[in-house]
Amino acid sequence: MASEYRLKRRVQFYETDAAGIVHFSWFFRYMEEAEHALWRQAGLSIAPPEAEIGWPRVAASFEFRRPLRFEDEFEVWLGVAAITEKTIRYTCRMTMGDAQIASGSLTIACVTKRPQGAMKSIPIPADIAARFQIASGSGG
Amino acid sequence: MASEYRLKRRVQFYETDAAGIVHFSWFFRYMEEAEHALWRQAGLSIAPPEAEIGWPRVAASFEFRRPLRFEDEFEVWLGVAAITEKTIRYTCRMTMGDAQIASGSLTIACVTKRPQGAMKSIPIPADIAARFQIASGSGG
Amino acid sequence: MASEYRLKRRVQFYETDAAGIVHFSWFFRYMEEAEHALWRQAGLSIAPPEAEIGWPRVAASFEFRRPLRFEDEFEVWLGVAAITEKTIRYTCRMTMGDAQIASGSLTIACVTKRPQGAMKSIPIPADIAARFQIASGSGG
Amino acid sequence: MASEYRLKRRVQFYETDAAGIVHFSWFFRYMEEAEHALWRQAGLSIAPPEAEIGWPRVAASFEFRRPLRFEDEFEVWLGVAAITEKTIRYTCRMTMGDAQIASGSLTIACVTKRPQGAMKSIPIPADIAARFQIASGSGG
Repeated sequence: MASEYRLKRRVQFYETDAAGIVHFSWFFRYMEEAEHALWRQAGLSIAPPEAEIGWPRVAASFEFRRPLRFEDEFEVWLGVAAITEKTIRYTCRMTMGDAQIASGSLTIACVTKRPQGAMKSIPIPADIAARFQIASGSGG
Repeated sequence: MASEYRLKRRVQFYETDAAGIVHFSWFFRYMEEAEHALWRQAGLSIAPPEAEIGWPRVAASFEFRRPLRFEDEFEVWLGVAAITEKTIRYTCRMTMGDAQIASGSLTIACVTKRPQGAMKSIPIPADIAARFQIASGSGG
Repeated sequence: MASEYRLKRRVQFYETDAAGIVHFSWFFRYMEEAEHALWRQAGLSIAPPEAEIGWPRVAASFEFRRPLRFEDEFEVWLGVAAITEKTIRYTCRMTMGDAQIASGSLTIACVTKRPQGAMKSIPIPADIAARFQIASGSGG
Repeated sequence: MASEYRLKRRVQFYETDAAGIVHFSWFFRYMEEAEHALWRQAGLSIAPPEAEIGWPRVAASFEFRRPLRFEDEFEVWLGVAAITEKTIRYTCRMTMGDAQIASGSLTIACVTKRPQGAMKSIPIPADIAARFQIASGSGG
């Protein structure tokens, strides 16, 4: 069972902006990278080919404390904070050495894919829910 | 004085992902596009050349209701919700026709740029604060 | 019939990098924005919902002369340079006022989508090819 | 002395588009990731803090053979193909297992940074040029 993931990452040049720091939109992508690595650790892909269900994001937030710069090496910790019938919520903390960089949250919902791209919320399949558990330290 | 901005936008192909919808990280960029257009409407640039102050983001969040797809035409409404001594907070609502797509929030802080890229929070200069006022309907 | 498109565009902050200029990867996206606008002008979408054919890029190049910066207003000219049985090639020129910024080229191929995501090159459908013609000044 | 770099990489979800494959603009970013890793291997950063010189891209191209998809693991090989007084040219090949994915080229120039962001091309400093040599197999 998977509950948390620790991703080591280096800032790429295309992630920086003219203020000389990582553009804030990238923190959400870093968080998602850690999420997908957590799913692989659980033996799953969040988007396997020809999948009939999907996992759209229903809420995402970040608070930013310190900036990241080109070539900085940092760490993304992601933990499962809550699992409900139809959603999973994660907590995320980013650090560089001892410095706290940012903390965030991400909630995803399970949906079926319909023709014309419509989505309908459904209960998380039991064999998927069984792969995850709440992380200690997730505040969940 | 500027208090709100309404941005019309079309989804570009590179903003979509393999789920066939706009990747959630883009909503934060759409919100920022509207913010920078609001500043231009106020007669300002948020990042003029050789500026000695900057406006890093300290918090950002979105709740997502409906997906956007390639070539969808949508609207981003951004309003000033609060101005404190050192920060500005915006509220954002995205719609497509009558459909509510997403709602978000963004808080920025005023900082001086120091050597080695360090940043120090400072009061918003009076001539900048004077250009903005709270938007009705911002929930601010 | 569509042969060329002139796109007016302003540099967004998230398109810049820590060198203070637009990251070179964005020029390819600007070129594609103009391409998709050209298709709309031709009465087509390059990626309609449930499409059975697609248009992967088979070659792309740019030469960069001058940088673009935050809030610069520039123009992207895209023209059809060649149409073969299975491919379309465009020429692109980017300018800001009188200044030449960059010039590029893009070649796309028509493919059918197969199960498991495989792609097979096919002749361009006649009703699509009929919508485009070579642009004068495309060097085509 | 550094002449080539082999980068192992996995496709992230935000790099895919609605066609279900990696958007072509990302190949240029992958190539640049390998370039910056090559510079680190040479004991250099291509963009150290407070640098007075920079390395804008003057030309970039790719030919695409096969698409990449979410979670694909692939390899980016980058080699130094040519060093002139003021420029460096790299060759790049991307593969997944035995399959050839794409091949590209990137040329960068050495510039001094001037006030107001102007750039002037200058000879590559000798202590930087001395760190690189032509890669065998670069076609250089």
